[in-house]
This record gives sequence, structure tokens and C-alpha cells, in this order.
Amino acid sequence: MSIVYVIPLFGLIALLFTAIQSAWVTRQDAGNERMQDIARHIAEGAMAFLKAEYKILTYFVIIAALLLGYMGYSHKNSDWTIALAFVIGAVFSACAGFIGMKIATKANVRTAHAARTSLSKALKVSFTGGSVMGMGVAGLAVLGLGSLFIILKAYFGAEANTAEMIKTIEVLTGFSLGAESIALFARVGGGIYTKAADVGADLVGKVEAGIPEDDPRNPATIADNVGDNVGDVAGMGADLFGSYVATVLATMVLGVETTSTDNFGGLAPVLLPMFIAGTGIILSIIGTFFVRIGENTGLSTAAVQRALNLGNWSSIVLTAIVCYFAVNWILPESMTLRGHDFTRNGVFGAIIVGLVVGTLMSIITEYYTAMGKRPVKSIIRQSSTGHATNVIGGLAVGMESTLLPIIVLAAGIYGSHACAGLYGVAIAAAGMMATTAMQLAIDAFGPIADNAGGIAEMSELPKDVREKTDILDAVGNTTAATGKGFAIASAALTALALFAAFVGVAGISGIDIYKADVLAGLFVGAMIPFIFSSLAIRAVGEAAMSMVEEVRRQFRTIPGIMEGTGKPEYDKCVAISTEASIKKMMVPGAIALLSPILMGFIFGPEVLGGFLAGATVSGVLMGMFQNNAGGAWDNAKKSFEKGVEINGEIYYKKSEPHKASVTGDTVGDPFKDTSGPSMNILIKLMSIVSLVIAPTLAELHNETTASKTAPEKVQEVVKKAETAEKTTVKL
Amino acid sequence: MSIVYVIPLFGLIALLFTAIQSAWVTRQDAGNERMQDIARHIAEGAMAFLKAEYKILTYFVIIAALLLGYMGYSHKNSDWTIALAFVIGAVFSACAGFIGMKIATKANVRTAHAARTSLSKALKVSFTGGSVMGMGVAGLAVLGLGSLFIILKAYFGAEANTAEMIKTIEVLTGFSLGAESIALFARVGGGIYTKAADVGADLVGKVEAGIPEDDPRNPATIADNVGDNVGDVAGMGADLFGSYVATVLATMVLGVETTSTDNFGGLAPVLLPMFIAGTGIILSIIGTFFVRIGENTGLSTAAVQRALNLGNWSSIVLTAIVCYFAVNWILPESMTLRGHDFTRNGVFGAIIVGLVVGTLMSIITEYYTAMGKRPVKSIIRQSSTGHATNVIGGLAVGMESTLLPIIVLAAGIYGSHACAGLYGVAIAAAGMMATTAMQLAIDAFGPIADNAGGIAEMSELPKDVREKTDILDAVGNTTAATGKGFAIASAALTALALFAAFVGVAGISGIDIYKADVLAGLFVGAMIPFIFSSLAIRAVGEAAMSMVEEVRRQFRTIPGIMEGTGKPEYDKCVAISTEASIKKMMVPGAIALLSPILMGFIFGPEVLGGFLAGATVSGVLMGMFQNNAGGAWDNAKKSFEKGVEINGEIYYKKSEPHKASVTGDTVGDPFKDTSGPSMNILIKLMSIVSLVIAPTLAELHNETTASKTAPEKVQEVVKKAETAEKTTVKL
Repeated sequence: MSIVYVIPLFGLIALLFTAIQSAWVTRQDAGNERMQDIARHIAEGAMAFLKAEYKILTYFVIIAALLLGYMGYSHKNSDWTIALAFVIGAVFSACAGFIGMKIATKANVRTAHAARTSLSKALKVSFTGGSVMGMGVAGLAVLGLGSLFIILKAYFGAEANTAEMIKTIEVLTGFSLGAESIALFARVGGGIYTKAADVGADLVGKVEAGIPEDDPRNPATIADNVGDNVGDVAGMGADLFGSYVATVLATMVLGVETTSTDNFGGLAPVLLPMFIAGTGIILSIIGTFFVRIGENTGLSTAAVQRALNLGNWSSIVLTAIVCYFAVNWILPESMTLRGHDFTRNGVFGAIIVGLVVGTLMSIITEYYTAMGKRPVKSIIRQSSTGHATNVIGGLAVGMESTLLPIIVLAAGIYGSHACAGLYGVAIAAAGMMATTAMQLAIDAFGPIADNAGGIAEMSELPKDVREKTDILDAVGNTTAATGKGFAIASAALTALALFAAFVGVAGISGIDIYKADVLAGLFVGAMIPFIFSSLAIRAVGEAAMSMVEEVRRQFRTIPGIMEGTGKPEYDKCVAISTEASIKKMMVPGAIALLSPILMGFIFGPEVLGGFLAGATVSGVLMGMFQNNAGGAWDNAKKSFEKGVEINGEIYYKKSEPHKASVTGDTVGDPFKDTSGPSMNILIKLMSIVSLVIAPTLAELHNETTASKTAPEKVQEVVKKAETAEKTTVKL
Repeated sequence: MSIVYVIPLFGLIALLFTAIQSAWVTRQDAGNERMQDIARHIAEGAMAFLKAEYKILTYFVIIAALLLGYMGYSHKNSDWTIALAFVIGAVFSACAGFIGMKIATKANVRTAHAARTSLSKALKVSFTGGSVMGMGVAGLAVLGLGSLFIILKAYFGAEANTAEMIKTIEVLTGFSLGAESIALFARVGGGIYTKAADVGADLVGKVEAGIPEDDPRNPATIADNVGDNVGDVAGMGADLFGSYVATVLATMVLGVETTSTDNFGGLAPVLLPMFIAGTGIILSIIGTFFVRIGENTGLSTAAVQRALNLGNWSSIVLTAIVCYFAVNWILPESMTLRGHDFTRNGVFGAIIVGLVVGTLMSIITEYYTAMGKRPVKSIIRQSSTGHATNVIGGLAVGMESTLLPIIVLAAGIYGSHACAGLYGVAIAAAGMMATTAMQLAIDAFGPIADNAGGIAEMSELPKDVREKTDILDAVGNTTAATGKGFAIASAALTALALFAAFVGVAGISGIDIYKADVLAGLFVGAMIPFIFSSLAIRAVGEAAMSMVEEVRRQFRTIPGIMEGTGKPEYDKCVAISTEASIKKMMVPGAIALLSPILMGFIFGPEVLGGFLAGATVSGVLMGMFQNNAGGAWDNAKKSFEKGVEINGEIYYKKSEPHKASVTGDTVGDPFKDTSGPSMNILIKLMSIVSLVIAPTLAELHNETTASKTAPEKVQEVVKKAETAEKTTVKL
């Protein structure tokens, strides 16, 4: 049983590695005074936002914890300690975001300075920054889950296949709920912040005033760079922390239901996902050592991409190998979950399915968003006839881009289920997420490089510095897109595993959409991602408008601002983004948290199941559509920098087609960085909320007549009323 | 039993009314030589398109009929006569489109001429044109369904509750399949045609050359006006013909399963929907007499809207009243469907639910797309900061606009099911569609008025003529939007009724999305509307690009074209639209027809059920999103004509915000007139295809091990293979 105590150790190792790497980054030269000054502005802006955000979230966490505690206290199927787990999950998630942002605001300026020396050095600094975040997030997750499991198990005195063990896992769900709630707010809030600043800065700066990106004369430029940190770094950190925890937890929930005769007291299926997550961190650390390019490589995007791919691939291959041994060591020959037998070979097969699905997802996403491929080229061609056809082209690409991923995903569900039943679906997601630390390192290096470019521009470093950071940034755009494809796929599998867990815990035998009320739930659920997206992108649109008006005002009223003699009021723009994002993240967050509760308590668990299925399906599609459309528009615009050929003519920046492509890119900004990436949190969060209330629902459900559909209940009420009437008449 | 013979009579009355009204329209003055010349151009273009389209569709109908006939011939559960019913349905649908286009190309020029006299006269001519189409479509539907039912019943010698009666209705499904297939091609083909021409004409004409809409110097202007007829009239006619038939049929399919002891030999639940449809026509004819405004009304949009509303409302109220008596006359006290009892009062309640849902849907849609309301105003405000924020604003409005309609729809499903079970859901849709003739009259008058405006502009009639047709056109825009809201709601209910019918016919007991393969089907189904939309809007984008290039070429190479001395080559633009639309309607059509067949035969009926549910939910959402976004963008743009206030400044046409609003409108064009309105046909067509193959699926399904899920089947195959190996070793 001592394996239980090994798991938190993996987390500690990751955090140790994080500390070492972080110290290394801090030791690097932060460049000249000007650079440090700008970097300080950015760091302060980011910290101000995080403070404001966390302050609001503290209230939320307290209120939610009290409600959870009350629910746990008053219903015999639950336990008040879930409130504690929730708070710990929220705090850990906030820490994950904080670590990421802290290191990113250090690494950005140091990357800029390193780029004065060589591309290789700049990659090293930015990627080390990214891996601090990756290992930090993964380490916190494994440490939190692992140690909380030990504590709760001891507290409840739980053994395998006992009610106490079920309760242990149910309380652990609170940890995941805390993590995922904070993730949602961080993603949405950060997403609104970064895109309001970005869109606002671009619309006035690039389009109206004709000054380049990150020009220090643009008052919104600091806000824009702060945004990269709070949205793409802190937001993403919280996001992946939540995903990682949810995925491991979903497998544990199904694992606890699995009957298994093994060397770990029957807990093997519960321990396996945590163990895989733990070893995944070590393999990711190994993978990071492959990410390097020679000092003499020259300015090559391909070389950087190759280095990252090598790191990524080695982590994945190592994971596959280690999983084979882990599965054979930990799991018994065969197990049973809800009457369905499966073998340990099946479980390994499911893990491979998960890794393959994740890899294919990344490849397909890259195809749809990369420069030089058909989809992006089609958008470029459609830019020649104006803004509208560019937008139509991007929307069409985004919608089309759902085809292959959905087929891969459906095949993945089918395949992993064929391998090892519902446990297979969950463990496939867990396998996919095992290399989260590496994925996140690759993801987070992008915004660091982006920021480094901004600092280079603002502090007027030589042009070749910006060239180097631009190469890193370009690669970062691709990894950001593929990372999102990966995230949505793993979220879909995780949501399905949670969905399956929900069915078990809520005490229903299936979710039959042939029933009218369940079908109505399916419709309502599928509508939620549309409303959520609408709120998110509208928030960006409106905040960007305020930003535009503020920048226009400064250009108009501050004398000498365009000549560089007047100083723009950066802080006013920072304040606009901060305020808008805090205010506008409330309603979407409330919808995600409250809608499943309302559906569940009013209409019962089966309708809630239909609701969840609708939300998951529609959320996955809307996520893919928005992420990929946004990525493709972005790269269509970027293609003009080197010049593109349309019908035999070459067009560059500032040509009419380029202006059209900027419109598409701007529309795509909130798609790909605000609403799109929120979708994966949304669907998981709604599933976790449902899972948390499932024991209470099951209790209520058993009290009422179990098997009747809602319309039948209505009829019953009518009949009772009629009988009552008749009785009255008799008297 | 003689009620059976009354039903086709309703159809004949409608066609008689059509003939009389059509003759009246033809008798009106067609104006001067110039006007007649232009009208001839438009009529010829429209006829050329219809010919080209119907030629291709003939091949399709022959091949599909042969396949259907073979399927019916070779499987004991089916019958070859379904092929015949299919062909008749296709031919009737083509006739419906043809009648509409024929009258519209007559009414347009006569409306333009009438507008020289008065608004009242112009409304009368255009609305009479619309009602010819409305009554023609409804008449053909009732005549076709009613008489085919009589013939098939006699042919099979069917009585209530016999296998022969089930076969009768199954063959009738072929009629609906024919109608809905043609509808899909007509809607998609027509939609691509009209928007390619519209977008192309606007991009070069309005945006680049700065000439007004419908300017005779624009080579694409004839194609644009042809497009109004082939898309908004012929396409819509076929669409509503298909919807109408599908809705009535869905109720009949559930009716035939209903156990009923009544005065019609147990057939009351089958006859009721046809009877309601029949009387609905008469009530619609009565409603048309309310649509008139006084000669001295002045140029008032509100007065026209009021007149149309009065006609609409009176039809709806009359339908409600007549349904009360019809239900009480035809239905017995109580009936049973699949073990669920319901009463005739319940059925009447469900009809009222349907009428209320339809009405609410129209009201909500109007709110989201009408000028002066919050959603459109928000888009206007977001136009002040450029193209991109306008587009973001419109997308946000479209997504948000799904909230209330989905809640109404879900409540409608829940409510109608509570009233009368699955039969209630179907009859709710049938009640909603009872006033189709009136709805279509109101819908079709819009494009006629739009065309009249085009003819007035091109033949340089006095400005006040255009003002009058513009009023009619503006009202037409609103009715078009509300009509779409109505169409998608009725389609959703119809699809659900067909879905329920499918479950019965395919011999499965439910659709449990807790099963992994069914859930995978749900994902794949939900993806179809995204791909379909992508193909449709891309087709418009690409055809519009060709159009733009052709118009640019003509402006460049034809001397004196801009001065009005050189004559544009209108026919080249007509040819581009025709060719593009015929070519590009193939793949979307094939997806709609083939995907359910593939899913059903490979994965079995339950997975197909999940697939259908996914497609329905996602199709309804995408339809609402696209229709409403498009409508809102359009009216945001139109608002600039009278001037709009943004932050204290008034902006008019040709201002920067107006240009941004034109971009949004252009993006919205394919949304609201190509892919959006195709969604309702798509979901119904896939359901009908599934229903048609359901008997064959049931047969195949019963042959294989009935209750096993697909993964279990895979495991079984593996086990068999293992056993086989062992056996081999033994030998």
C-alpha cells in the first residue's frame, strides 16, 4: 500500500524542480534600465489584476464553501469536509496561476535580453520559464490530490469497496470543484482582459494611427502586454490545473466503483491514474532536456518547432512505455465495473487510444491553423475581396475544422470503451493528460516570447532582437493552437468520464433521450455554450470599445504623444481592462455553476444528464469552431508579413487584403483567447458540479417516485387534485 | 369514413383560389416597356436556373427512386411503392417552387407599377402574389398527402391497427422524403445563388464603385434580382412544402400506432392532422382578406405591419377555435400510444401549446432582429469602432438569441408531451403549421416587394415609387426573420415527432446516451450542421468572389459602362451564380441524405438515434444563431439610412460606422439566407431518411443479437476469434 505515499512525492519533486529552474531564470540578466522599467510596469499591472481578481474570488470561495458545507451537513449522503476540499482546491488553483504569472513576468524581460545574444539562449530562457509553470502546475495537482487522498482516507477510515471509500472520493470531488471554478473565472476574466487590451490597442494603434504593434506611444500597449500574462499565462495555468485534476479525479471516481482483487487492497484502479500523473511529471522533466537548439542554428522557425516537438514526442513515447509497466504492476489481470468486465491489457489499450487521440487532435488542429496549409490559404484568398469575405472564409474554416476532430473523438470514445469500458474512457483521458507538464511548458513559452518581443520593441532594442523573439512567438502561436486542440479533446473525454460517474452516483440506470423531458434538457444544455460564448465575446467587444475611446482620447488630448515627447497614461488603460474583466466574468461563471444545480433540483438527475450531454457536445463543437477559426485568421494575417500571392499579385502589410485580414484576426481574438478556451472548462465544471450534487439528488430522487417521468408526475398531480376536489364535494 | 375524401377537396379549393388570384395578378398592368424588359430578363434568368436545377435533380430522383424501390423490394418489412411515392413527392415539391417563382416574377413588375399609384395598391398586388404561392404550396401538400393516402389505403386494403395500415403510412413517408429532398436542394442551391449574386453585387457596386443598390450599371444586378426569386421564393416554397408535409406525416405515423376507438374505424388520430391542415388552408384564405390598408394611409411601415399581423393573428385564432371543434368531433374521449394514455382535451391542449410556441418564437425573433430594439442597437454602437467590433457584436447577438427560443421550445416539448404524450408533440407541430399558407403568403410578399424596388430603380421610375416598395421591403425583412423563427421551431418539433416515430418503427425501446456508442453518435450528429453550414457559407463566399472578379472585369473592360453608355453583360453574372449554386449544392445534399444511412447500417438504430438527436439539437441552435445574427446585422445596416446616434453624433450612409455595418450585413447574408434556413430542412430530412430506412434496420437489427452494444459486439468477435484459435491448436 506504500504506493499511496509515493504519489505526493512526485508532486514534491516537481515543485523542487520548479524552484531550481525558477532560481535559474531569476539569475539571468534582466537587461538595461529601460527594459527593467517596462518589465516592472507589466509585472505591476499583472499583479494588480491578480489581486483584484483573487479578492473577488475570495468572497465567492467563502460563500460557495458555506453552501457546500451546509449541503454536506444536512444530507446523509454527503459530508461537510467537501467544503474544506473545495477551499484547498481553489487555493491551489490560485497558486498555480500565481506561480505562472510570477515566473512569466520575470522570464519575459530576460528572454528579451537573451535574444540580444542568440536565438538558442532566448529559447532556453523562455522555455525554462514555461517549464517552471508546467512543472509547478502539475506538481501542485499531484501533491494536492495525492496528499488529500491520504488524509481523507485516514479521516474516514476508508478501505476499498466500502461506503467510506466512496465518501473519500466524493469529498475529493470538492477539491476538483474548487480548482475548476477558479479556472473558469481565471480563464474568462483573463481572456476578457487580454483581448480587450489587444483588440483595443490594435484597432486604434495599427488600424487608425498606423503605428506598429507594441509601439510605446500607444497608451494600451502596457495593458496589452499585461494581458498576455494574465490571460495566456495565469488563465491557462489555472485552466490546465483544473483539467488535470478533473481528469485524474474522474478516473478515480470510476475506479472506486470497480471491483478489483489486487495487491493494493482493491484500490489499484483508484491509484493508477494518480500514479500515471506522477510519473508523467518525471517524464516531462526528462522531455524538457530535449528542447534545445544549437548556438549556430541561425534564425530558423523550423528548428525551434523541431526542438519543441522532440521534447513533446519523447514525453509521449516515454509515457506510453512507462504506462505499460505501471498497468502491469499495479492492476490485476481483470476487473469489473458496473457488470462490465475488462482486463489490464484493455486498460493499457485505452491509454494508447488516449495518447493517439491527443496526438491526432494536435496534428489536425495544426493543419487547420498553420500558415501555408489549405485552410489558412483559403482565408488569405478571400481577403482579396474585402473584410466580409475574409470573415466568411474564417467562419467557414472554423466550422469545417470540427469534422475530423469529432470523428477522432467519437472513435476514441468508441475505442477506449471497447478496450476497458467506462474506466477505459476515463483512463484514456488520464493518459492523454499525463504529459500536461510538458504541454504546458510548450504552451506557456509562447506568451513569454510574445512579451519579450513587446519589451524589445518598447525599449527600442536593435531590430535583430525582435526578429528572434518573433520566431519564438510564431512557433508559440502554433503550439497555442495545438494545445487548445489537445485541451478540448481531453476535456471531452474527461466530461464523459464524469458524466458516467454522475450516472452511477445519482442512482439512475441510464439517460434516455427518447423521454421528452430528457430531450428538453438536451436542448437547454446545448444552448448554454452559445450563451456563454455570447457573453464572453460581447464583454471583449465592449471592453475593447472603451479601450479604443480611451486611446483616442489620449491621442487627442495629450500633447506630443505621437512625437514621443508626451507620455501616455498607461495605467488608465490597465484600469479599464481590469475593471471590465472582473465585472464581466461574473455572469458566465454564475451560469456555469448554477444551471446544473437548477436543472438537477427541479427536474431530477436524468434530465440533468440530458442537460450535461447537450452542454458537452455543443461545448466541444463551439470550442473547436472558435479556437480554430481564431487561429486560422491570426495566421492568415501573419502571412501578409512575408507577402502573399493572390491571383498572381503579391500583397504585403498595409495592402487592402491585409487590412481585411486584420479584421478577421480581430474577430478571432475573443474566439480563440476568451470564449473558445473557456469551453473546455465550462463543460468539465458543469459535470463536476453535477457530480458534487449527485449524492443529494440521489437521496431526493429516491424519496419521490423513482421511475416516473416528469409529465407523468404532472399528470399525477392533476389526478390528485381531481381526487381532492371530488373528496371535497363529497363532504 | 367519408372525411377521408373531404381532405383532398381542401387542397383543390386552395388550388382553385390560387388560380383565381393568379389570374388577377396577371391582369394587372405590367408598366412601361423598360419595366417589362427588365422583368423579362429576371424571369428568364430565374427560369434558366430552375431548368438547370431541375435537370440535375431529375437524375437524382431517378437514382434515389431506383435505390428505394430495390430496398422496398428486397426487404420483407418494406414495399417498392415507396419509390413511386418518393417521385410524386419530388414532383409536387418542384411544382410548389415553380408556382411560386412563376407568380413572383409576374407580381414583381406589377407591384412596381402599382406603387406608382399607391402603397395600398402595391401591397395588394405583392401580397396577392405571396398568397398565390402560400395557397399553392399548401394546396399541393394537402392534395398530395390526402389523395395518396386514399390510393395507398385502397391498394394495400388497409384498416386501422393492421400491418397494411402501417405499410400505407410507411409508403407515404416516401412522399415526404421526395418533398424534403427537393426542398433541401432548392433551399441550398437557391440560397447560394441569391447570396453569391447579392454579396458580389454589393461588394463591387456599393463598396468599391460607390453606386447604389440595383443600379443598372452594375452587371450583377439582374443576377441579384433573379436570386430573390430563386432563393427567397422558389427555395422557400419548396422548403415550406417539405416542412408542411413532414409535420403532418410525423403526426400520422404516431397516429397509426395509437389505439383509438372512434367513428372513423380507429383512424381518427391519423386523419386529424390532415383535417387540421385542410381547414387551416380555408382559415388562411379568410385571413388574407384582413390584409389591406386604406388608400389614404400614407407611407407608413407600421400600417403595413399591422395589416399583415391582423391577417396572421386572425388565422391563428380561427385555427385555435376550429381545432377545438375538430378535435372533439374526430377524436374519441381517450387514446393510448405506446402504453401512454391521453385524452382529446390533452390533444387540444397540445395544439394550443404549439400555437403559443410558434407565436412566442416569432415575437422573440422579431425582438432580436428588429430596428430600434436593444440587440440591433448594440450592433450599431459597435460599428463605431470598426468592422471587427461590428462583426463581434453580431455574432454575440446571434448566439445570445438562442436563449429564449430554446427555453420556449424546451417548455413546448415538455408541455405538449405532458398534454398528450408523443402524439401531443407531433400535433403541436401540426397545429403550428396549420396556418402555413398564411405564413408563406406573408413571407413571400417580401421578396416580391424587394424585386419591385429593384425594377423601379433599374427602370428609373420616380423616387416615390422606390419609397413605397422600400416600406414593403422593410416589413418583408421583419416577416422573413419571424418566418424563419417559426420554421425552425416547427422543424424542431417535427424532427422530434419523427424521432419518436423512428424509435417505434426501428424496434428499439429507447436511446440511452449513457452507452458509449450512442454518445459517440450524438457527437457525430451534432457536428453535421457545422459542416453543412461551413460548406454552404463557403460556397457563397467563393461564388461571390467569382462574381466580384467578373464585375470588376466588366467595369475595367467595357467602355462607357459607368457613364451608362456601355451595356453590362448581365447574362455572364447570371451564369456564374447558376453554375456555382448547382455545383455547390451537391455535397451538402449528399451529407444530409447519406450520413444517416451510413450511421444506421454500420452502427444500428440506437446509435442512429443518438446521431439524429445530436444533429437536431445542434441544427436548431445553429439555425437560430445564423438566422438571427444575419437579420440583426441587416437591420443594423438599414438603420444607418435614416441616421443613427452613437455617443451623441449622428451617422448616415457612407460614414465609417456605416461601412462597418455593411461588412456585418454581408457576413450575415449567407448566414440568414443560405445556411441558416437550410438547418430546418437538414434536421427534418435526416429524420425522414432514418424513418424510411427504419423498417429495414429493424429487420437487420433483429437478425443480429438484439440487445448488445457495439463494444460488446467487438468483444464477442474477439472472443470468437480466440475460441477459433484454441480450436485450431487442439486439432
